[in-house]
Amino acid sequence: MTDPTALSCPAPAAETERVLLGHGSGGRLMAELLRDVIATELGTDPIAEDAAVVDTGTAEVVTSTDSFVVTPRFFPGGDIGSLAVHGTINDLAMRGARPVALTLAYIVEEGLPLDELRAITASAARAAATAGVPIVTGDTKVVQRGAADGVYVTTTGIGVRHPDATPSAAHGRPGDLVLLSGPIALHGTAILSARESLGFESEIASDSRPLHALVAAMLDAGGPDVHTLRDPTRGGLASALNELAETSSIGVDITEDAVPVPPLAAAACELLGLDPLHVANEGCLVAFVAPTAAEAVLHAMHTRPEGAGARVIGSLTDEHPGRVHMRTMLGGVRVVDMLVGEQLPRIC
Amino acid sequence: MTDPTALSCPAPAAETERVLLGHGSGGRLMAELLRDVIATELGTDPIAEDAAVVDTGTAEVVTSTDSFVVTPRFFPGGDIGSLAVHGTINDLAMRGARPVALTLAYIVEEGLPLDELRAITASAARAAATAGVPIVTGDTKVVQRGAADGVYVTTTGIGVRHPDATPSAAHGRPGDLVLLSGPIALHGTAILSARESLGFESEIASDSRPLHALVAAMLDAGGPDVHTLRDPTRGGLASALNELAETSSIGVDITEDAVPVPPLAAAACELLGLDPLHVANEGCLVAFVAPTAAEAVLHAMHTRPEGAGARVIGSLTDEHPGRVHMRTMLGGVRVVDMLVGEQLPRIC
Repeated sequence: MTDPTALSCPAPAAETERVLLGHGSGGRLMAELLRDVIATELGTDPIAEDAAVVDTGTAEVVTSTDSFVVTPRFFPGGDIGSLAVHGTINDLAMRGARPVALTLAYIVEEGLPLDELRAITASAARAAATAGVPIVTGDTKVVQRGAADGVYVTTTGIGVRHPDATPSAAHGRPGDLVLLSGPIALHGTAILSARESLGFESEIASDSRPLHALVAAMLDAGGPDVHTLRDPTRGGLASALNELAETSSIGVDITEDAVPVPPLAAAACELLGLDPLHVANEGCLVAFVAPTAAEAVLHAMHTRPEGAGARVIGSLTDEHPGRVHMRTMLGGVRVVDMLVGEQLPRIC
Repeated sequence: MTDPTALSCPAPAAETERVLLGHGSGGRLMAELLRDVIATELGTDPIAEDAAVVDTGTAEVVTSTDSFVVTPRFFPGGDIGSLAVHGTINDLAMRGARPVALTLAYIVEEGLPLDELRAITASAARAAATAGVPIVTGDTKVVQRGAADGVYVTTTGIGVRHPDATPSAAHGRPGDLVLLSGPIALHGTAILSARESLGFESEIASDSRPLHALVAAMLDAGGPDVHTLRDPTRGGLASALNELAETSSIGVDITEDAVPVPPLAAAACELLGLDPLHVANEGCLVAFVAPTAAEAVLHAMHTRPEGAGARVIGSLTDEHPGRVHMRTMLGGVRVVDMLVGEQLPRIC
């Protein structure tokens, strides 16, 4: 006869503390959440003010905002907290700005384990501290079960421009060289591998990292000759180059075999039917640099770990303005288009 | 016999254009959404840069961020777009700052009608233009059906402090008068009436509006004697006063019959079992002002429509620090506590 105890329910695990709707209601529970979870993990005092004061040292600031909805929230090479910090730092850096402050806003689904919110906040705080950029204020909203997917994070950054450079999507010039700081397709393939359990999970890690120190080195070396900077995130290198080609009214010529795609990322792309040029990156940048300055800028990039693999992948031309052409490994030339459709939802 | 045509399905309505997952993927569809919907409604060029440059005119800036998840998205007196603009402008104003720039980040659920996104964006643009604060950059993410509820909006603001004032939650002093700019409990009851179809929908409107001009008038009149400013949003006047009492280590004494609650809002609160002191506001503020300056500050408030009903509702004391006491209409004194629990989820 079956042991009757075998039929009984297993003993409940220690109850997981979870986010409640009341944590978002502006009262006592919210004050406790902000004090015991958010402020504790950020290593700050609980924020008593509606807004934070930031001394930028200059009258002209740069600002950027980004929401992060990546799934899964934890992935090889990072999580939604560190990604949100890196992503906004990088958007500031692409305008030649040194980031000086970040804000952090959460939209949390009721029921999220508090330990997850702790881990994400701690990760954001670590990423910000490592980058040397303080998180100065924030917000937390809670929505009922089913009205979000765990937690979404919106970061906004304030930065100060480099004194000698005003890189812009519109500043590409014929003859400029196209520089790429490192290998592509790692972030997107890491996320998709984790999501689909492809078996690459332990081997491909996101390239998520801050690029502002790399940009500072490039601008110190090249100053105003660094015409354009862009981090090829959603839509990948192909979409970024197309956007820049359109905004600068310039043609972009790149060479396929100059664009580094790590073998495992290439294998994952093949398995998933993706073009690596369309896969999101979170830790590399593309630059248009005047040819006279390119060697100095490349040298400066090579002094930084995140630019160790920097190389020239092409040049700008006044032929085919607004379009991106690629010389393939077979010697032909193909048009590289923007990503079309819904290839990679919730990649960042 | 029944007319067979009566059994057939009704002719489909003209197909509603909706947000697709591909609109968030960083490629061609996203570029179209940004150009045809977002930039069109904002009245700007499509944003080609990752970040925006803001000339603040000074080195010290103030920043604040807020996510908005209000349901319903359209309500008497406003919508999630105008509310997001007003809310962040007001958070800056509560630090004595004149807002100079806003950022706007959307998290959109796949399937949202594009016309709704247009209407919300147009409303945000109108609110920003009316307030004289440009929206300088933004972001749009799309999540699959069921991973959000329509659209969530995160706004971040940058502002510049008034030269003569540094209001802070920590600056309340014994003897300060407590000023309230206008009636309370309108935003929360408007939202709940719309949500629950209580029958008040056409009669109670949210007080959502920008308060920065009112604050500028107060600071021009009172300068550093305006010690503390706070807009009592989530958690209502009771939670705001408790937070300030704790942060300033001060006791707050208010008088019940000095706090204006419009009759319909009071009726809605009674029907819903709510204390008006716990109901969210989006268009009024509470201030702690040195008694010598209170008359001048009140006079300045009365010159602005949003401060026409301003009045003294109490004073600060060094007795009962960290606590809020209210003299009731019956002559007794009761402790006013913060909101506890989940009274009003998704009110803003």
